[in-house]
Amino acid sequence: MSLSFASDNCAPVPPQILAALARVNTGAMPSYGADPETAAVEARFREIFGWPEARVFLVASGTAANALALSVLCPPYGTVFCSEVAHVHEDECNAPEFYTGGARLTLVRGGDVMTPETLRMALAAEGNRGVHGPKRAAVSVTNVTEMGTVYTLDELSALGAVAREHGLPVHLDGARLAMACARLSCSPKAMAEALGAEAVVFGGTKVGAMDVEAVVLRDGSRADEMAYRIKRGGHLYSKGRYMAAQMAALLEDDLWHALAAQANARCDRLRAGIEAAGVEVINPSHANMLFIRLPARVHEALKARGVVHFFDSGAPGDVVAGRLVCDWSTTEEQVTGFLDALRMAL
Amino acid sequence: MSLSFASDNCAPVPPQILAALARVNTGAMPSYGADPETAAVEARFREIFGWPEARVFLVASGTAANALALSVLCPPYGTVFCSEVAHVHEDECNAPEFYTGGARLTLVRGGDVMTPETLRMALAAEGNRGVHGPKRAAVSVTNVTEMGTVYTLDELSALGAVAREHGLPVHLDGARLAMACARLSCSPKAMAEALGAEAVVFGGTKVGAMDVEAVVLRDGSRADEMAYRIKRGGHLYSKGRYMAAQMAALLEDDLWHALAAQANARCDRLRAGIEAAGVEVINPSHANMLFIRLPARVHEALKARGVVHFFDSGAPGDVVAGRLVCDWSTTEEQVTGFLDALRMAL
Amino acid sequence: MSLSFASDNCAPVPPQILAALARVNTGAMPSYGADPETAAVEARFREIFGWPEARVFLVASGTAANALALSVLCPPYGTVFCSEVAHVHEDECNAPEFYTGGARLTLVRGGDVMTPETLRMALAAEGNRGVHGPKRAAVSVTNVTEMGTVYTLDELSALGAVAREHGLPVHLDGARLAMACARLSCSPKAMAEALGAEAVVFGGTKVGAMDVEAVVLRDGSRADEMAYRIKRGGHLYSKGRYMAAQMAALLEDDLWHALAAQANARCDRLRAGIEAAGVEVINPSHANMLFIRLPARVHEALKARGVVHFFDSGAPGDVVAGRLVCDWSTTEEQVTGFLDALRMAL
Amino acid sequence: MSLSFASDNCAPVPPQILAALARVNTGAMPSYGADPETAAVEARFREIFGWPEARVFLVASGTAANALALSVLCPPYGTVFCSEVAHVHEDECNAPEFYTGGARLTLVRGGDVMTPETLRMALAAEGNRGVHGPKRAAVSVTNVTEMGTVYTLDELSALGAVAREHGLPVHLDGARLAMACARLSCSPKAMAEALGAEAVVFGGTKVGAMDVEAVVLRDGSRADEMAYRIKRGGHLYSKGRYMAAQMAALLEDDLWHALAAQANARCDRLRAGIEAAGVEVINPSHANMLFIRLPARVHEALKARGVVHFFDSGAPGDVVAGRLVCDWSTTEEQVTGFLDALRMAL
Repeated sequence: MSLSFASDNCAPVPPQILAALARVNTGAMPSYGADPETAAVEARFREIFGWPEARVFLVASGTAANALALSVLCPPYGTVFCSEVAHVHEDECNAPEFYTGGARLTLVRGGDVMTPETLRMALAAEGNRGVHGPKRAAVSVTNVTEMGTVYTLDELSALGAVAREHGLPVHLDGARLAMACARLSCSPKAMAEALGAEAVVFGGTKVGAMDVEAVVLRDGSRADEMAYRIKRGGHLYSKGRYMAAQMAALLEDDLWHALAAQANARCDRLRAGIEAAGVEVINPSHANMLFIRLPARVHEALKARGVVHFFDSGAPGDVVAGRLVCDWSTTEEQVTGFLDALRMAL
Repeated sequence: MSLSFASDNCAPVPPQILAALARVNTGAMPSYGADPETAAVEARFREIFGWPEARVFLVASGTAANALALSVLCPPYGTVFCSEVAHVHEDECNAPEFYTGGARLTLVRGGDVMTPETLRMALAAEGNRGVHGPKRAAVSVTNVTEMGTVYTLDELSALGAVAREHGLPVHLDGARLAMACARLSCSPKAMAEALGAEAVVFGGTKVGAMDVEAVVLRDGSRADEMAYRIKRGGHLYSKGRYMAAQMAALLEDDLWHALAAQANARCDRLRAGIEAAGVEVINPSHANMLFIRLPARVHEALKARGVVHFFDSGAPGDVVAGRLVCDWSTTEEQVTGFLDALRMAL
Repeated sequence: MSLSFASDNCAPVPPQILAALARVNTGAMPSYGADPETAAVEARFREIFGWPEARVFLVASGTAANALALSVLCPPYGTVFCSEVAHVHEDECNAPEFYTGGARLTLVRGGDVMTPETLRMALAAEGNRGVHGPKRAAVSVTNVTEMGTVYTLDELSALGAVAREHGLPVHLDGARLAMACARLSCSPKAMAEALGAEAVVFGGTKVGAMDVEAVVLRDGSRADEMAYRIKRGGHLYSKGRYMAAQMAALLEDDLWHALAAQANARCDRLRAGIEAAGVEVINPSHANMLFIRLPARVHEALKARGVVHFFDSGAPGDVVAGRLVCDWSTTEEQVTGFLDALRMAL
Repeated sequence: MSLSFASDNCAPVPPQILAALARVNTGAMPSYGADPETAAVEARFREIFGWPEARVFLVASGTAANALALSVLCPPYGTVFCSEVAHVHEDECNAPEFYTGGARLTLVRGGDVMTPETLRMALAAEGNRGVHGPKRAAVSVTNVTEMGTVYTLDELSALGAVAREHGLPVHLDGARLAMACARLSCSPKAMAEALGAEAVVFGGTKVGAMDVEAVVLRDGSRADEMAYRIKRGGHLYSKGRYMAAQMAALLEDDLWHALAAQANARCDRLRAGIEAAGVEVINPSHANMLFIRLPARVHEALKARGVVHFFDSGAPGDVVAGRLVCDWSTTEEQVTGFLDALRMAL
């Protein structure tokens, strides 16, 4: 039995995804997103978010989805405010800089969670240099955060209010939006409106698809520009039906919610067992991801027992921090297996 | 019965592609291209091209594949020489300019086919302005061309020789490389070596995959840079196994060749029938694509009979030029159906 | 006596320019364009063009002026229409692509002069590809053209009308605007309004300054963006007073017109003498620049006599084409000297 | 008597600069930097730095000089390490991101001074994410720093050693290099070699020129690329003789040193007087710039007495921090005048 908790990117896809690909694999269909499958997904997202004017674009990676969303919110001489460990900063290899044409990310100090105070402080610091500094252009919020924390609707609405005070549009990086909504028992609409987001990335990959993320623009005002930017970035795929079919499968009967809830439930069990074993979990709240602190020797012992998970390299003997991720395919047995291995390793 | 000859991008995928996706859909696998499927595809391409040091990168669109390939061959202050109707110029919405950071395409006059003479003329015209003009950086050749013509190996080798004279690397846009190789009964290796290509795009989508193109770099010298550029462009997909599985299926037992040969054979029948009907085919040679000239009224009559194909808009009463594309899924019946409709429309 | 007719970029500056630099060299002054000299120049240009809302930006090169002007008219996924020998295409080393963030120039076939017909044809050819081709964004017109021709006001107004039909803003590259206005005995206002230009580059360098070009934006709508783009491009100079003083000197009592008229007058004499000698002048009309065709041996003989001018390299024995430029400092003696040398060389 | 201590960018130019412009204002000269004045400046810098292969490029702003220097050291997918208040970060409006094509600055925590420890920490934090984070590409050091501190040669050599350990080239932002050398009584060569710099910006403007900065590349390896990048950025000025003449004047008999030493000497007097008055000076060492902390009411009183200097906005009643800069033109009387005003204001 594999004991992989490395990432929800390592998971296979549920049968519904393969079935959806087979379903649309019939005869000729218009290319480049002009197919009926793509249109149906856009229509469905308009309902889900309650945005009748929304435009939806499907791309194959979260990096592309985020960078493209920021590219219509921030000019090349602008800056986007985000947490200092945001995925757009840490894990996208300058893609936001690339797609915006040279804009910058301004890091809001204070770990992975922004507060109205820390955001205000960062906005103020950038605000008084005229053309000598970049123009304040947008705020980017991630829920679930990179460190596994889940912002509540109240917290999102407080951040959104600060952005509005400054007249800045908000981008929601929703690579794990499904898990956040499942954790908060709220709809994507409720989350997007709490934050007042202009652009939402609804992640399909981490919750179970092969590779599809939806960029949802609240209104049509930036859609023409986005369509050109997507083609220019090489993200207008010729056989769009297969991207659309994956997302359609996730949206049908809220499959996304069922998959996310299952990943979260496994993670609840995992957290309980870990804390019962006296091991510290770093993130106060969680969806499907935990960060824990362990003596390096325990980490080594876990690896020896076949546990696969991401750990920061630490000098021998150090305490190291590591990440455990559950996904839709994580089984009870795997959770139990990990906890047994942990107890033996301690 | 559908009579769609609009594009090989409108075709479904053969069963082997769906089977391959199911085959790799088992348990956890490393993400971001660190999976064994991706490694196996790279190894296979090294054999196919006879390039032991080659590096292979899989991306989901031909636009991305071409623009990324050019981005490691041409600096932002450079220019790439290509035909005046090359896909990189006509149909990629400034993606080459975007990925190179602002480089330019210099169009070689003379329709879709470059000759050593026309290429030399264009190179000379750009060659004497020092820093006032862009630096000559690369040559991009497409086979099958946008107008359906197939360069012979001798023609490719004559173009490659001109590029070498000028010390310029060559990019091969192989969106329809499979069809070109099938037409010429040659291997991808023979074609790449005739041209002396540094970077080859081996197209998987038009020949039958959902969405996968391989960028093959002859040696490793540009691989580190390419890896960063691909991530930066949002083209490093988290679940790489599914991209790799599609390409593996195309390469297994040369499925790509069988699919391409079938598309070409249908196109042979189509051409014979069209010419027998007294209608002009514009491209002298062909693989799976024909360009024909018809009175607008005939074009209208064909549409009325349910024929779907791409036609340039022309003033009413004009003769219009149009494109017919066969793909792996085109049937004898569809070809016969088109020819019947054509005869009735004339 | 020097016989340099190579370029108006090789000329020294008139005493008024040096005097202006000395005039403003007194005590402390606000930096980065906040000085009163810069404000005065903007006010003066508002009068000159009759644009009360105009914003004016002074930069040190024509390449910067043109590329920055285009960067506020054309998005990165757009294209700018210009003649196939326009300076922005031939002599600015991808600066327009750089400043626009990757936009493209679409060349209007037909040498250095665009006509409503050739412009319409180019616009139509780019117009029907949706996001697969770049978005049509702007038209760039140069007067005096690179080949020395002067568009009449009627010709400019016909080109402007085509741009307006397509809803595209117009950029006027006025590196030699002074010479064009002097030739047509018209004001910069008359020329800008005939064309319906949104952005005008009023060139100061070729007519006599050390290095200053004014980018004049008709209204304020793009000024905030331009201010950031100029700083980002490194074109906001800390001691702006010296740039402003040069332009103020050119504008005072229309010094620019006197200098341009003198350069043009010398060129008239030059043309008359050349044609009297039976040598062909290529450009039908002219301001301060002629293109002539000569046997290579005559060109060599002229060089031997100390004539400095730009000539295209030609194979020995060929007829070669060359350029002769007069500037404010060109003397009667130099013109006579050239004509004597020419007669002796023929 | 003006009491301006706002910036060395507000100063006029010494008579030698105007004289130099007049000196070269004679007849025709080759354009675009092909003139003998520019060649002479390059030759002189080769001697000054003891780099026989060095290439020198003159541009009109420090922002351009820094961004261009970084553009040949850092690829678009890379990152440059600098202090968190470096000019390239705080005051260049994304110019480094623009010129590098989308690279990033990684801020080294700890105010304006980097130490080997803080630099190592920042390098390590960026070092383990493969293509998910940007590639570590270069280190940028400023001397004099933005906060007025002067790095000693030992401190520079310790920073350079860390960069070399990591195989990274070093950029020296020398906007106030003259003042730093004068303060340390060392040559530019000694400073560049202590740091092991690949690219040095020798600032001419703040020490007294109108607008000229020299980008000095240690060897020729990046010169071809730089020449294209400069033209592409619009920083190849057509009448290069005037840029060169300014720099030649600064280099002749080490005028730059005399001007810098005078500015520093005035600043010494200013510091002594301020500290004698019991007011805190923030920067431990200084060249020609001081940062002081004052009650807001004293700041207001100084303004009322006509003192012009830069002050951070602070809430009423707060203690505010401010900057005082001396330049070559600052007189004893101005220093005395400021100190009198300060004593009266306290």
